Amino acid sequence: MYYTDGKLQYPVRVESPNPVFARMLQQAIGGIEGEIRVALQYFFQAWGNRGPVKYRDMLLSTTTEEIAHIEMLSTAVALNLEGAPPALQEEAVRQDPALAAFLGGMNMKNFLSAGLAAMPVDSDGVPFDCSHVYASGNIAGDMYANATAEATGRTLATRLWEFTDDPGMKDMLSFLIARDTMHQQQWLAVIEELCGYEGVLPVPNSFPQDEENQEVNYTFIDTRIGDDVQPLEGRFTSGPSLDGNSEFSHEFAAPFGEKPVLGPPAPEAFAQEQQIEGAPDAATPES
Amino acid sequence: MYYTDGKLQYPVRVESPNPVFARMLQQAIGGIEGEIRVALQYFFQAWGNRGPVKYRDMLLSTTTEEIAHIEMLSTAVALNLEGAPPALQEEAVRQDPALAAFLGGMNMKNFLSAGLAAMPVDSDGVPFDCSHVYASGNIAGDMYANATAEATGRTLATRLWEFTDDPGMKDMLSFLIARDTMHQQQWLAVIEELCGYEGVLPVPNSFPQDEENQEVNYTFIDTRIGDDVQPLEGRFTSGPSLDGNSEFSHEFAAPFGEKPVLGPPAPEAFAQEQQIEGAPDAATPES
Amino acid sequence: MYYTDGKLQYPVRVESPNPVFARMLQQAIGGIEGEIRVALQYFFQAWGNRGPVKYRDMLLSTTTEEIAHIEMLSTAVALNLEGAPPALQEEAVRQDPALAAFLGGMNMKNFLSAGLAAMPVDSDGVPFDCSHVYASGNIAGDMYANATAEATGRTLATRLWEFTDDPGMKDMLSFLIARDTMHQQQWLAVIEELCGYEGVLPVPNSFPQDEENQEVNYTFIDTRIGDDVQPLEGRFTSGPSLDGNSEFSHEFAAPFGEKPVLGPPAPEAFAQEQQIEGAPDAATPES
Amino acid sequence: MYYTDGKLQYPVRVESPNPVFARMLQQAIGGIEGEIRVALQYFFQAWGNRGPVKYRDMLLSTTTEEIAHIEMLSTAVALNLEGAPPALQEEAVRQDPALAAFLGGMNMKNFLSAGLAAMPVDSDGVPFDCSHVYASGNIAGDMYANATAEATGRTLATRLWEFTDDPGMKDMLSFLIARDTMHQQQWLAVIEELCGYEGVLPVPNSFPQDEENQEVNYTFIDTRIGDDVQPLEGRFTSGPSLDGNSEFSHEFAAPFGEKPVLGPPAPEAFAQEQQIEGAPDAATPES
Amino acid sequence: MYYTDGKLQYPVRVESPNPVFARMLQQAIGGIEGEIRVALQYFFQAWGNRGPVKYRDMLLSTTTEEIAHIEMLSTAVALNLEGAPPALQEEAVRQDPALAAFLGGMNMKNFLSAGLAAMPVDSDGVPFDCSHVYASGNIAGDMYANATAEATGRTLATRLWEFTDDPGMKDMLSFLIARDTMHQQQWLAVIEELCGYEGVLPVPNSFPQDEENQEVNYTFIDTRIGDDVQPLEGRFTSGPSLDGNSEFSHEFAAPFGEKPVLGPPAPEAFAQEQQIEGAPDAATPES
Amino acid sequence: MYYTDGKLQYPVRVESPNPVFARMLQQAIGGIEGEIRVALQYFFQAWGNRGPVKYRDMLLSTTTEEIAHIEMLSTAVALNLEGAPPALQEEAVRQDPALAAFLGGMNMKNFLSAGLAAMPVDSDGVPFDCSHVYASGNIAGDMYANATAEATGRTLATRLWEFTDDPGMKDMLSFLIARDTMHQQQWLAVIEELCGYEGVLPVPNSFPQDEENQEVNYTFIDTRIGDDVQPLEGRFTSGPSLDGNSEFSHEFAAPFGEKPVLGPPAPEAFAQEQQIEGAPDAATPES
Repeated sequence: MYYTDGKLQYPVRVESPNPVFARMLQQAIGGIEGEIRVALQYFFQAWGNRGPVKYRDMLLSTTTEEIAHIEMLSTAVALNLEGAPPALQEEAVRQDPALAAFLGGMNMKNFLSAGLAAMPVDSDGVPFDCSHVYASGNIAGDMYANATAEATGRTLATRLWEFTDDPGMKDMLSFLIARDTMHQQQWLAVIEELCGYEGVLPVPNSFPQDEENQEVNYTFIDTRIGDDVQPLEGRFTSGPSLDGNSEFSHEFAAPFGEKPVLGPPAPEAFAQEQQIEGAPDAATPES
Repeated sequence: MYYTDGKLQYPVRVESPNPVFARMLQQAIGGIEGEIRVALQYFFQAWGNRGPVKYRDMLLSTTTEEIAHIEMLSTAVALNLEGAPPALQEEAVRQDPALAAFLGGMNMKNFLSAGLAAMPVDSDGVPFDCSHVYASGNIAGDMYANATAEATGRTLATRLWEFTDDPGMKDMLSFLIARDTMHQQQWLAVIEELCGYEGVLPVPNSFPQDEENQEVNYTFIDTRIGDDVQPLEGRFTSGPSLDGNSEFSHEFAAPFGEKPVLGPPAPEAFAQEQQIEGAPDAATPES
Repeated sequence: MYYTDGKLQYPVRVESPNPVFARMLQQAIGGIEGEIRVALQYFFQAWGNRGPVKYRDMLLSTTTEEIAHIEMLSTAVALNLEGAPPALQEEAVRQDPALAAFLGGMNMKNFLSAGLAAMPVDSDGVPFDCSHVYASGNIAGDMYANATAEATGRTLATRLWEFTDDPGMKDMLSFLIARDTMHQQQWLAVIEELCGYEGVLPVPNSFPQDEENQEVNYTFIDTRIGDDVQPLEGRFTSGPSLDGNSEFSHEFAAPFGEKPVLGPPAPEAFAQEQQIEGAPDAATPES
Repeated sequence: MYYTDGKLQYPVRVESPNPVFARMLQQAIGGIEGEIRVALQYFFQAWGNRGPVKYRDMLLSTTTEEIAHIEMLSTAVALNLEGAPPALQEEAVRQDPALAAFLGGMNMKNFLSAGLAAMPVDSDGVPFDCSHVYASGNIAGDMYANATAEATGRTLATRLWEFTDDPGMKDMLSFLIARDTMHQQQWLAVIEELCGYEGVLPVPNSFPQDEENQEVNYTFIDTRIGDDVQPLEGRFTSGPSLDGNSEFSHEFAAPFGEKPVLGPPAPEAFAQEQQIEGAPDAATPES
Repeated sequence: MYYTDGKLQYPVRVESPNPVFARMLQQAIGGIEGEIRVALQYFFQAWGNRGPVKYRDMLLSTTTEEIAHIEMLSTAVALNLEGAPPALQEEAVRQDPALAAFLGGMNMKNFLSAGLAAMPVDSDGVPFDCSHVYASGNIAGDMYANATAEATGRTLATRLWEFTDDPGMKDMLSFLIARDTMHQQQWLAVIEELCGYEGVLPVPNSFPQDEENQEVNYTFIDTRIGDDVQPLEGRFTSGPSLDGNSEFSHEFAAPFGEKPVLGPPAPEAFAQEQQIEGAPDAATPES
Repeated sequence: MYYTDGKLQYPVRVESPNPVFARMLQQAIGGIEGEIRVALQYFFQAWGNRGPVKYRDMLLSTTTEEIAHIEMLSTAVALNLEGAPPALQEEAVRQDPALAAFLGGMNMKNFLSAGLAAMPVDSDGVPFDCSHVYASGNIAGDMYANATAEATGRTLATRLWEFTDDPGMKDMLSFLIARDTMHQQQWLAVIEELCGYEGVLPVPNSFPQDEENQEVNYTFIDTRIGDDVQPLEGRFTSGPSLDGNSEFSHEFAAPFGEKPVLGPPAPEAFAQEQQIEGAPDAATPES
């Protein structure tokens, strides 16, 4: 069960309300790198947890914190919308370019659909959809997904911090940026704790690796062509593989297969007659 | 520019066409952990590349390979749909439970909308949408996103491998699983090559870290309550942080802020009258 | 069957075309509280009608009216787009802030994709999707859904009315607001006519109510915590229930269940090895 | 802030795991009438609350309860997936029709993408999207939206209850059905408490009603045609209006406007030449 | 305005209700090639009509007919759902494979969310979204879009016709297939009437064609590579162009441009430090 | 397999970066008439090809070219974003209306989520979704879909050309417009080559046409009503049909069917009691 004390995790104040910044903050609420995503992602990882029970507790702790972050950001959006332009009067716009910027740059739906409040949408008013909730049941894959979410989330927060000069907003973002710092560490620490970086690769590590094709599993395939193409060189083209299981190699791409040829159109699928007549007789996916 | 030789990267053959497995393979094409996603993700990371040019080449190489993977899987779907039930005859179903399973388990759209061919949808017929293309402009965030994609992608491929006993399909999947092994390594190798694991955190590392709130950036916040709650212990609650910049600590959650109170409804947003009358006078987000 | 006389239900005229207002009107066409939604919602409720046939006729009447409303709004969008800025000339923008507002605030897709006409999208260009068409087959649930649609729709229309000072637009909106007044009444009147407010609750009223858990069906559960928390008091915490079947009560939240523990990862789902080893032995969802 | 004790609100047990029922339960998690929707809807209504503060507390209480409901249902899905068919062996299917039904009827993504766990999707694997979160800023509109959500939610729960004969599932659903009973009452009680049913209509009641068109605001418009059409009769065609402000009346539909004629295509929008030549000269939306 | 007589355009009867076929019919309602799409597409083309007024009338006529088609199909879905399995009893399934097929193959949402009625979704339960409504404002582009919709729509209808052996369904589909025959002709006839096939290309024909690059506008670019590649030959590689304005030619692909190099990461976008240091100095999109 | 030389198909240069034009270019990348759509559409048509193999080659050639177009446009977006406003300083906005226009008119996500790079979204930030990939398996339907895509694509490109006065952008668009000219021809040439315009209709032409209802397959149905309605006249109401198989005719609409009446609500779907009692006894879809 879940409980609330109704208080903000960290104070939210806005000195100069700015409806364009309200719109930008929406990205941190309902964008794919935003807080709704991480809250739901950690919830579903916890509820589907089939491994060390300790990580269920850890995930539930952080996801309840993330709800508090949505709450902070939603409050920030509402405060930035105070005094947003209530009408489109051409004369007023003509005399105040900032009003023109606000009119063009704020999100009308925050007014039209929400009455000057936050919505679960991104900075373009696109609603968040839950296909972005990654919970694969493989803890390493999920921890990388979480690190990604916190990395793109912190990147977003720093860009918002750069954009505003409102001290209240900078203070709130400084708090959120700090939490993203911790959360990045936290998810990667699970990998270190559970199996170490060498033990985690390849994900999943419970599949018998000798079943995978042994000729291409540590080979960088280079598809570039041209008279002056040199093989790409990097950590990923030679030397020991990161998991210590093999050596990296480099190859220019060449097909192992042939042109696929599907069978003729199924009569009951009603292709064009000429298409049916012109079709090869049999499904011969390779010659 | 891009070129093709029209051949499959690796041979695709199906000994026993199975329309239910065709449906499952769709997840590897148009699912969020599928090949359309990685192909487009690497393309947009390459095209927006604003860092070492070498990684643009690397990304373009791998993305052109991923297109070949969609091609292989699309061919596999079409071959598994050969001979799919063309009609729903109750008598035939009554006499053959396998036919019943096929009818229920295949995706009708592969027949109705595509004439027995693959589509850019997942195993439930949900179309892929490009919000899943992560290209943040921060190379570390993007490499974690890529590692995630290959980790969830390889997990999916191993589940498909487990599900089928068709030798052709097992062979194809063995190839794709091997490539996912390499690709996981490849993206993490960029991080090692570019900055090392210690140098990469926190992402982004170009933000001045002293601007972030120093009291919570290495603290695990534990929101669990209950009479018998003990502090969670793990790699993430004590000891040096992964980036070497600080020490982890643990705290039970407590609010830094107060209950937020927004201003009264804007008259022009037309809330209910009683709601307006009952509203507090001023926006006082914290007391 | 359906027929048309090609005429507008009510005159639409625009004295001062305004492309930003055109964008706002899109919310009333393709927003979730817009006219496409109600038109399709009433259609599907009518076509799936399995109750008094009279309501099929009523629904079909109002839905054909709603199509006329989309037509009016689409005409209004097109007229507001007359003379929208055809080009982005920096010098012109520099000299006319209103042009800047228009450039920023109009929806480019109305020009780029529709050639200065309306589209079935909301004010942010997000297309309407038909998951918003509620037709549950339970007439009380559907009538509440319809009342909701007309309530949010009328709220939207009043906000648009407030925003514009074009007399033609105010006149058109005055008509639409009036129709929303009627439609709110109409759907609630069905509830009154069919079963009265007491007879309608709980929805559905055809489920045997003694099958539902009798200890929590009229209890307000209060999840707030804190040293100074007092029980919430209101019409919903004491006194007779609205349906007259019971008395309201108040309780602070406490779990009836225990921590859930799922079984170990299925081998064929390929979780991480360490995760499998660390998992509890059996699915024991509660202790 | 939010807190958790990690326990289920109500025990969840499954005697006979059934992967088809797992799929159906997904509708109660990620369907439009499901628990993710109500949880997020009440959160955003609370966070955007600009009226009596009491309702912010009430909304937060119930939304934290709804999270516990998602948790219960997610646990139920996972338990129903225990022992789901791990492979598609034609011989086994031939001998066991129930296996055929399971193969066809379970959602493959619960295995392929989630490793036998719940996902934030509906029973067809369609992800929940947050456009379904209604929070208009008008408390009456929002309360009707909430009543709708609980009415369709309870209808769904009763259909699930009817479908299963697992005693554990029936017990859990009996609890959830009871909570939906209370929640329906709760939201309607706000309307009664705040303004009474007569005071609430039309929503919003803060718009000056004399600005709306007085000739059509209490008139049922009947668009049916045919030789034998009689005027529809009902509570909504005569007698006092529900809000007591007027009398209902009935009219057969007739247009107030004329055929709209838009201006010629804008040259810069590049319509077809013949289309431009054939166009009328001026925008004359009505004759 | 729009009117209805409440009658079906063509009789709909179902001799043997079949819930799997109900699911398939959903594709013709809410699929991208279904009837909701054409109805809304023709509506928006009509309402945005800025050319010969005659085509507004024509479009409105056909779109009102299309609503009648949705109505027929929705009725057919409901009739096919009569008697759908109300419960999942393992014993019954074991004894009746057809029941297994129905359980697996029907769409649960038609029961769970709609109470055994049609929904505005496709055969996988994916809701229709209005981005599929093409109305570009260019009449030739729109007529091709309409011809496409009727071509894919008729293809779908013939596949449904092939799948069923219910005489009532075959009769209804025979009617719909015939209407698609007419509608294909109708939209192409507009092109013939307005400008003839030669006059219509390239679409739009109002753009000054000498502004387009003259070296590649009638050249087939062949991107295939390989030792044995021969130039593709066809109507599109030599001879007069279809519009009579030029001659077709063939070329193997070669780039006109160079590798693009973007400028260094913007400091305020917070890329990784190493990425910034490794970046080239200036935006030089081509060398 | 696919290969790249890393070069742009055609040079991309921007003389005056303009973030509003960057936003507009996004429509040509991720809009429904944009380049991602055609690239994926031609890919899936090629991979599902079950007809003359020649068309597989042709499709693969053009789709690899389309990837190069996305690359050009993505480069153009990035170059137009150089120097986009990094902060929202009210004073600066007050003094520069063009800055106001940029702030309002640029897409914030290009900065916030992508670090000043292109994204696979349209000009409103709505992500492309793959339901727009038409590949029906009927070559005529697909060629019309392709012609539509190139017609709406060319229309979009000409509108972009009209909007900008940057010589580099005009040059790039002139190239893309020319390619759209060719591609329109190309797809229509397949129809001419394969069956001629007369042979292609109705699509699909492999369905036995005598199975379709012969009374309505060449009849224009006119649903307009009114005292002064005259029959619509045009190429589509009289004279030989385009396919030469029949004569066009005109009819005013009249129903062939009756009002549908569904059966009573299924008890297990839990409609309202009053609704069940008021329902007719039997499913009688027509009288």
